[in-house]
Amino acid sequence: MKRILFLLMVCLLPAIAFAQRALVLQTDFGLKDGAVAAMKGVAFGVSPALPVFDLTHEIPPYNIWEAAYRLYQTAAYWPAGTVFVSVIDPGVGSSRKSVVLKTKSGHYFVTPDNGTLTLVAEHLGLDAIREIDESRNRLPGSGQSYTFHGRDVYAYTGARLAAGKIPFDSVGPRLPDSVVTIPYQKAQVSGNKILGNIPILDVQYGNVWTNIGEKELNLLDVHYGDILKISIYKGTSFRYQATMPFVTTFSAVSPGNLLAYTNSLLQLSIAVNEDSFAYKYQIGSGADWRIEVEKVKKAR
Amino acid sequence: MKRILFLLMVCLLPAIAFAQRALVLQTDFGLKDGAVAAMKGVAFGVSPALPVFDLTHEIPPYNIWEAAYRLYQTAAYWPAGTVFVSVIDPGVGSSRKSVVLKTKSGHYFVTPDNGTLTLVAEHLGLDAIREIDESRNRLPGSGQSYTFHGRDVYAYTGARLAAGKIPFDSVGPRLPDSVVTIPYQKAQVSGNKILGNIPILDVQYGNVWTNIGEKELNLLDVHYGDILKISIYKGTSFRYQATMPFVTTFSAVSPGNLLAYTNSLLQLSIAVNEDSFAYKYQIGSGADWRIEVEKVKKAR
Amino acid sequence: MKRILFLLMVCLLPAIAFAQRALVLQTDFGLKDGAVAAMKGVAFGVSPALPVFDLTHEIPPYNIWEAAYRLYQTAAYWPAGTVFVSVIDPGVGSSRKSVVLKTKSGHYFVTPDNGTLTLVAEHLGLDAIREIDESRNRLPGSGQSYTFHGRDVYAYTGARLAAGKIPFDSVGPRLPDSVVTIPYQKAQVSGNKILGNIPILDVQYGNVWTNIGEKELNLLDVHYGDILKISIYKGTSFRYQATMPFVTTFSAVSPGNLLAYTNSLLQLSIAVNEDSFAYKYQIGSGADWRIEVEKVKKAR
Repeated sequence: MKRILFLLMVCLLPAIAFAQRALVLQTDFGLKDGAVAAMKGVAFGVSPALPVFDLTHEIPPYNIWEAAYRLYQTAAYWPAGTVFVSVIDPGVGSSRKSVVLKTKSGHYFVTPDNGTLTLVAEHLGLDAIREIDESRNRLPGSGQSYTFHGRDVYAYTGARLAAGKIPFDSVGPRLPDSVVTIPYQKAQVSGNKILGNIPILDVQYGNVWTNIGEKELNLLDVHYGDILKISIYKGTSFRYQATMPFVTTFSAVSPGNLLAYTNSLLQLSIAVNEDSFAYKYQIGSGADWRIEVEKVKKAR
Repeated sequence: MKRILFLLMVCLLPAIAFAQRALVLQTDFGLKDGAVAAMKGVAFGVSPALPVFDLTHEIPPYNIWEAAYRLYQTAAYWPAGTVFVSVIDPGVGSSRKSVVLKTKSGHYFVTPDNGTLTLVAEHLGLDAIREIDESRNRLPGSGQSYTFHGRDVYAYTGARLAAGKIPFDSVGPRLPDSVVTIPYQKAQVSGNKILGNIPILDVQYGNVWTNIGEKELNLLDVHYGDILKISIYKGTSFRYQATMPFVTTFSAVSPGNLLAYTNSLLQLSIAVNEDSFAYKYQIGSGADWRIEVEKVKKAR
Repeated sequence: MKRILFLLMVCLLPAIAFAQRALVLQTDFGLKDGAVAAMKGVAFGVSPALPVFDLTHEIPPYNIWEAAYRLYQTAAYWPAGTVFVSVIDPGVGSSRKSVVLKTKSGHYFVTPDNGTLTLVAEHLGLDAIREIDESRNRLPGSGQSYTFHGRDVYAYTGARLAAGKIPFDSVGPRLPDSVVTIPYQKAQVSGNKILGNIPILDVQYGNVWTNIGEKELNLLDVHYGDILKISIYKGTSFRYQATMPFVTTFSAVSPGNLLAYTNSLLQLSIAVNEDSFAYKYQIGSGADWRIEVEKVKKAR
């Protein structure tokens, strides 16, 4: 009887122990060519049972900030143990390190350490970071290829980690506990204003997202129904100013009207109902886009 | 021996009972940001073994009609038990209901009830419809988020249904047997004409699809080789008229020539061989686009 | 004890024997409509456990050459046994044959035999080719549909082959060992020049790829650090000429500068660092684009 249970355990172990881990891929390669499919072929070759998903492959070419943001936006919705592979790598071949970050939340990020880890290290917490030892962690037979680290090193190592073929320790030597970061305006209250960053646009709809959350809104005593004055800058250059209501939902204002709301990450966002705020007012996003928020009228 | 079989059954049961059900996602979010990936993370968190597929995420923003059409176009090619999650939701936060429709064909559709169900309810048959009880069916910890029902309610509930974590009954209270519908010209014979709708374009190639099927073609005695006169209207506004042969395949006419044919849903369609009919003649699609078909010459 | 092992084997057999095989889909359908989702529904109906992946669905409409290239670019990164379904089919309904190619590398390709197999047959080796017998290998109930072979024949047959529901022999009758091919300039040394083809662009970045590999570079004694003169022609029409360094990595030249490098397939490629060579100099790709390479200065 014990033997039977043992055999059952042996037969179920791979499924139980590792099938829970997903490999999630992000690149700026697009889906028009075969690059992503080659990465998935390598992952499938490592383990046919490994669940492979896409975060996005439409990161604008070389846009490390957006890569950083997409990881931050989605990682927390995946279970601990999930392995993200992110390949936005303008410095391929330069001295940037290939690393795997393990966060305190238990997520793994396989990527060049070029700023991509800025936001997940800050928000999910840095547990440990290791440099990929390419002498051990590289697709066999790929040694002559100089440029496709995404396939030969990152997808291969990420798949082996997610499938339980190597433990985190075997990635390579541990590095000091820090990552390369991109500077940006953190959300903070200054006098009667909240200062913040526009990290990203909700591209499909043209809504403007900020990094200002509940904490800062509470400090300035902002509640639904209040009227807010919003100012937007790119670096030091003034770009936009208007007042608008802070509401719980788009349908609280008529189509074509301005609104401030809380997005799906619980952060302050700006929109035109059923139109594109970003396109209409030529607002962009990134580390250098800043926003200021003042409360000009209290909800009745 | 019985005990062994029992153990084997226990170990295989999850695979046998529920691995057959797929979760199929449709949105107007596009694939440039992390919204779809967050939905998939939630689904994966519900069950790592759940097969997750995409219908499309390129529904034009807020285009409920097209969402309705894509579900109708594809659902029948998936096995009974498949759970579709469709999030095209211009009225998020308004009074539209979040529902799960079970059709007579055994498919499930998780969506806001805003017209998205028009065509699958009509063609696959309404078996039962339930309102999602968000107090029980909502991603734990997401209570503060006002705007991302796609992730917190629809993906979460769809994944739990597909993975067998909840039965259909536990979705929430049963509603009366009807769905919100979008009016359109149904296919019908009127005198010597067939009247119909242009529900959609074959976007990649610019072919024009109609809802006119074998039944109406038979009633008007239309056969391959006949010459048809096609008239197209948007609402009451005339847009296009021409005659063309009704053929079995594109290669029956030379490149650049007009043809009528039967598309992959066995419905009458209009095209220019190796060119875009829709672009060339500025024809669109939707609930308000109408077509009239007359037979002007019989096949010899 | 033997009985237990036998039962375990029976229970594990499907997973061991066939779960390793993936189905990989390529089309020119795009992802905006439901065509690809219908194909996946058919595959899922054949076997819910079958791993289904996308190569790309963004092949430019009717571009058989690019379809051929994408298969060649990626197939070798997937394990033997992988089944590729490729549907770029301008001649649907004409006399082109529906076939399955098995290559010497053990990969399978399900496609119309219209040139799509040009490069995989050449590079992976033709082991056997069979015509699909549609009387046996067609989605049940789809007999009336004249135009969606991708769903009813190719996806259905590919899925059954990948899932082990039919052996290769059951596809249909064996054909003579040859495929329809598209002529192009093979890589070869002629005097002091290397002649070659520009099969494809690295579309996301605008880099120009060639079919010139290590062998031809060695024959002309080209090494990293050498200066190369590159000439580009479309058919017999001259399009571009310049000299540039042959380097191991993009970062070897400043942003905006020309470089020649070895791409991820170990073939000579041309680029502008952090810019689009193809857009800047209006260079395209395909069977009729040719390149000539001369060494004008040796590395010191």
